[in-house]
Amino acid sequence: MTQYDRFLSRSGQLMRESAIRQMGTVLAEARDMVSFAPGYPDEAVLPWQALAEIARDLLSGTDGSVLQYGPTRGFPPLREVIVGLMQERGVSTSTDQIVVTTGSQQGLDVVARVLLDPGDVVLLELPSYTGAITAFQNVGASLVGVRQDVDGLDLDELDRTMDVLAAEGRRVKCLYVVPNFQNPAGSLMSLVKRHRVLEWAARRDLLIVEDDPYRDLYFPDVTREADTRPIAADDADGRVLYLSSFSKTLAPGFRVAWASAPAPLAAKVELAKQAEDLCTGGLDQRIVYEACRRGVLAGQLPRLRAHYQRKRDVMAGALTRSGASQKMRWLAPRGGFFLWARLDPPLLANTLLPFAKARGVIYVAGPAFFVNGQGQEFLRLSFSAPSCERIEEGVVRLDAAITDALEADAAREAPPPYPAGPLQGQSRASRFDRP
Amino acid sequence: MTQYDRFLSRSGQLMRESAIRQMGTVLAEARDMVSFAPGYPDEAVLPWQALAEIARDLLSGTDGSVLQYGPTRGFPPLREVIVGLMQERGVSTSTDQIVVTTGSQQGLDVVARVLLDPGDVVLLELPSYTGAITAFQNVGASLVGVRQDVDGLDLDELDRTMDVLAAEGRRVKCLYVVPNFQNPAGSLMSLVKRHRVLEWAARRDLLIVEDDPYRDLYFPDVTREADTRPIAADDADGRVLYLSSFSKTLAPGFRVAWASAPAPLAAKVELAKQAEDLCTGGLDQRIVYEACRRGVLAGQLPRLRAHYQRKRDVMAGALTRSGASQKMRWLAPRGGFFLWARLDPPLLANTLLPFAKARGVIYVAGPAFFVNGQGQEFLRLSFSAPSCERIEEGVVRLDAAITDALEADAAREAPPPYPAGPLQGQSRASRFDRP
Repeated sequence: MTQYDRFLSRSGQLMRESAIRQMGTVLAEARDMVSFAPGYPDEAVLPWQALAEIARDLLSGTDGSVLQYGPTRGFPPLREVIVGLMQERGVSTSTDQIVVTTGSQQGLDVVARVLLDPGDVVLLELPSYTGAITAFQNVGASLVGVRQDVDGLDLDELDRTMDVLAAEGRRVKCLYVVPNFQNPAGSLMSLVKRHRVLEWAARRDLLIVEDDPYRDLYFPDVTREADTRPIAADDADGRVLYLSSFSKTLAPGFRVAWASAPAPLAAKVELAKQAEDLCTGGLDQRIVYEACRRGVLAGQLPRLRAHYQRKRDVMAGALTRSGASQKMRWLAPRGGFFLWARLDPPLLANTLLPFAKARGVIYVAGPAFFVNGQGQEFLRLSFSAPSCERIEEGVVRLDAAITDALEADAAREAPPPYPAGPLQGQSRASRFDRP
Repeated sequence: MTQYDRFLSRSGQLMRESAIRQMGTVLAEARDMVSFAPGYPDEAVLPWQALAEIARDLLSGTDGSVLQYGPTRGFPPLREVIVGLMQERGVSTSTDQIVVTTGSQQGLDVVARVLLDPGDVVLLELPSYTGAITAFQNVGASLVGVRQDVDGLDLDELDRTMDVLAAEGRRVKCLYVVPNFQNPAGSLMSLVKRHRVLEWAARRDLLIVEDDPYRDLYFPDVTREADTRPIAADDADGRVLYLSSFSKTLAPGFRVAWASAPAPLAAKVELAKQAEDLCTGGLDQRIVYEACRRGVLAGQLPRLRAHYQRKRDVMAGALTRSGASQKMRWLAPRGGFFLWARLDPPLLANTLLPFAKARGVIYVAGPAFFVNGQGQEFLRLSFSAPSCERIEEGVVRLDAAITDALEADAAREAPPPYPAGPLQGQSRASRFDRP
């Protein structure tokens, strides 16, 4: 048999499975697992009937182009709709800046290919989205993380990091950020920081890749729409490549998302996409377009906000009531899909994981989101997909797993290494007490 | 405003629009253009009603996973179906070798990323498919063409080329071939040559990337199914990465295709795909699966063969009757979508093109398919998408454009530089007289 390693490219040799997708495999293998792992939208609230009606109309055969190849940039009426959505978000753009992508993952991948040579540096938040990390790594970029607070990036550390990189003669091309309900930390970058990041990028002469899949899913109890204003909205000199998606608001199965970029970069994004898949699915794009045109998306959004806000409450409440809350610290998010928790010592995410699987619950362990090898003490708990009952059940299981892990740890080493006093989770009131 | 060139990667700087997609832009701009340019399937013969019924069933909401994220490798039942389709083609495989891709273009792109480092050499046919050329170029590969006869690659030249490259110390990773109804030349590689190519790859220790989108569309009047046996069918030591698609047989708008590769390479293909788009569209994959399961695909194939065979006859007949046949040489293809024509001097494809556009007909000029700067004398005429009436009309327009071009040429230079005697197209009988 042929040996393949010698046929692989350097990037082919280095490719590794993402921790999130590995969890998908675990889930597929075990039917009664409660999964807090992948950031899946809840299938139960998809507008099935409206989508079925749209598909019926589209597949009547009167418009053959529905199932034909289409322009690489995307179905033109959908690109017009996207210009309108961008306007609602405060971003003035035009169709020559919009490229429909096959999910935001493709947006990240093509942006990486257009911008980054091996060794080029991308700055990003610690922690950050694994899919972006992989896309940047696959083109050989060097990833340098910058710590963040609950209101986003630590700008002083960002500036110091840049000084160090500049002193080393490194070529820093861009900063990758997820300002709204960040994946995985759930953080919301303050408006003041957004302005300062933009000024900083101009001063340092960098581009910003702004990834914004969760923007529409702010939780009205503690977040106003104005809090989600994209960095791109104030970008006067064309430094921001903005990515967003219909995956979290309509359905991920359509694989319809978009990139909005300065026209010269949009032209390159289009070419990179062309070589990746020629065009995004024709039926999918038209279903999404019709869902926008007929008001299905607009009708969904308030419903989804309330739905996921309630699920956040269920997870936060279950954690607060459970013993787990005594063993970890966390902030209830102001939008999006993720609750990011920090385990108290001696618990570590990867050592807890086998106990969690044994109890029937999974999550993504922190290191997947850190480009610097850290994150062992963090869990990403996604509350978006499981039902409220399953969320409650999953937290009970997680609590039991923590007890199991601590007992195993105590049995291994006596006296136990963790401190004697009780470790407090934050109170509900303080969790919403944000800057 | 920001200047962007300095932010682009090397591959981003080099990306260029494909000639085929440029023709799509021309088509979009001019409504009465007869397009022989893109290799689009005919929308009129899509099984609209069956697909509409399938979509209705899938969108009932009883199976939420239809619109959810799915496994990167693809919807498992679809992968089972693909193993069965491969078996029908004579290729024994298993699901761990199959990765569903977002069109075959993604298959080409991920194979390129998994195998090729900048400077690695890919051997390919002269002419060859532009989408493959672009995917290989985007990872910095060096492309070296080898001439082909009507029955496929010139194996002696292939071997000599390899000697030269070896002497230069070049790393040759793979040979890219389209054995069935090649895009653009329409050629069918003989079974003898398929065996010899496989032996050659083993002797030279290379991989073969076999791209097979047109296999099901052989024309029964002159081609047997057995003539289309994939190289992969006889691959005992795992040298072949095989790509195929549902785009030409069901519909391109679904963007559902597949790669079949030795399991260790399939695992890498999966990882490369994961970073490109996470997964192929869920609804699309299930529609394709149901179309296979319910026999819709199997019912389509004989119908499509007869349909495209008839269109080939219409184009071949119109060309033979027209004056154009006196100014170019061509072979009627034995399957697929393309008639490849060679213009007689002084006509050249790119100088003819403005005359053709002015007359209301477009095609793809040869150089797009040649990696060595040649091909000026060739046209790719696609007969798959236009109706029979439009094909007739397009040939009339092409004929007029040729007359216009020759008159312009004669006016520019007197005496005219082309030879005095009549240039003969081949007779219909000899066009089917293949080895």
